[in-house]
Amino acid sequence: MNSVVDLILNHRSIRSFTPEPIKGEQLDAILASAQAASSSSFLQANSIIRVTEPELRERLAEYAGQQAYVADAAEFLVFCADYRRHLAVAPDAMTGFTEQLLIGAIDGALMAQNALLAAESMGLGGVYIGGLRNHPDKVVEALSLPVGVFPLFGLCLGHPAQIPERKPRLPRALVVHENHYPAEVDSTLLAAYDDTMHSYYQGRSSNQKSVTWSGQIRAILGKEARPFMLAALQRQGFLLK
Amino acid sequence: MNSVVDLILNHRSIRSFTPEPIKGEQLDAILASAQAASSSSFLQANSIIRVTEPELRERLAEYAGQQAYVADAAEFLVFCADYRRHLAVAPDAMTGFTEQLLIGAIDGALMAQNALLAAESMGLGGVYIGGLRNHPDKVVEALSLPVGVFPLFGLCLGHPAQIPERKPRLPRALVVHENHYPAEVDSTLLAAYDDTMHSYYQGRSSNQKSVTWSGQIRAILGKEARPFMLAALQRQGFLLK
Repeated sequence: MNSVVDLILNHRSIRSFTPEPIKGEQLDAILASAQAASSSSFLQANSIIRVTEPELRERLAEYAGQQAYVADAAEFLVFCADYRRHLAVAPDAMTGFTEQLLIGAIDGALMAQNALLAAESMGLGGVYIGGLRNHPDKVVEALSLPVGVFPLFGLCLGHPAQIPERKPRLPRALVVHENHYPAEVDSTLLAAYDDTMHSYYQGRSSNQKSVTWSGQIRAILGKEARPFMLAALQRQGFLLK
Repeated sequence: MNSVVDLILNHRSIRSFTPEPIKGEQLDAILASAQAASSSSFLQANSIIRVTEPELRERLAEYAGQQAYVADAAEFLVFCADYRRHLAVAPDAMTGFTEQLLIGAIDGALMAQNALLAAESMGLGGVYIGGLRNHPDKVVEALSLPVGVFPLFGLCLGHPAQIPERKPRLPRALVVHENHYPAEVDSTLLAAYDDTMHSYYQGRSSNQKSVTWSGQIRAILGKEARPFMLAALQRQGFLLK
């Protein structure tokens, strides 16, 4: 279609980086790209913590579940929902609404995807680190996040030292619907996708395994999903009502 | 820097469209771009409802607060958090966790930003419609969304019939912090930004007004923010714990 679409379709998460740093002008363009994203009601309810201290990176890598690339990547950015500035200009601001967390999460992700694509357009690569949400309280403390600020996820960026395969996505017919959500999930399409993913996991160049997407989903959703998240958000002033 | 960064920095929300449709191959690339985004634990916990029925578009335009472009745009996509497929393959799945809504909201926005940038790379334009969250229950009903699915926001896409100015963003020093969140919000920078925005709103080519960013924030956050959102999410099976 065009080079932008090709770039987007060529995305794969990069978890191994060379030691080469990201140039100042590159980081500048990445951060400007993040800020260029749309903002709901122009609230601009997000901040980015750029983590440069090696000791702090090591701590975050551990919190994220021993993900060494959090420490090793040239850059590590933490995207936060942030109403601290709003509370500074409007001390009587009504915060804590569920809607405001949605805005922070959605707009923070729009910014991050701009940042990642800008980086990828320079030949850099990256990976999102949802694992920061394993220990939200520890991340809050490590980054000195005040009430009104919550760490959503991290983003590692650097020069790729690997070219992993691209994972096949769910068939579009299971994801994109016209006008109405279908009454039934198409089990035939799901079964075909399970075959596709089974072949992918068995045939890929590293970390081969014998699993299907459905099997992975049953394993992941058979367990609690970070059951401490609601309380952690509430301690930072979110999801109070 | 490069053409991708230029495209990202050149973003402005488009709210007026020509009647020209989006070609099938363009829509195909836009939807493929959406699906190419990263997915937390590869859950793929999102769906897109493409709304093509004119009557349905009119209803959604009304729900969104009389936003006529929701009816007029060549395409209107509703991005949803979606655990319905997971419940189909894992009927005993543990859902309703706050973490799972975060994943749906974040990953849905990553997909949407890919879709918007893909569209913009073709000379198309668009605008996000958070206003769908004015009436989440009505949107759920209009699109027949089952339990496990929640409409996050809409995206209008089409051929631009306007070129609005780009709004100046908060100064980077207020948004990007190194290692730690600052103890104080820099009031000097905020005041300077208020001057910048006041000049912008007074000088722009249409809809001039005499306001500052701080003034807008005080007005918006002086009111409740969609206080029905928590209950609406819970009715769809989200934020139960």
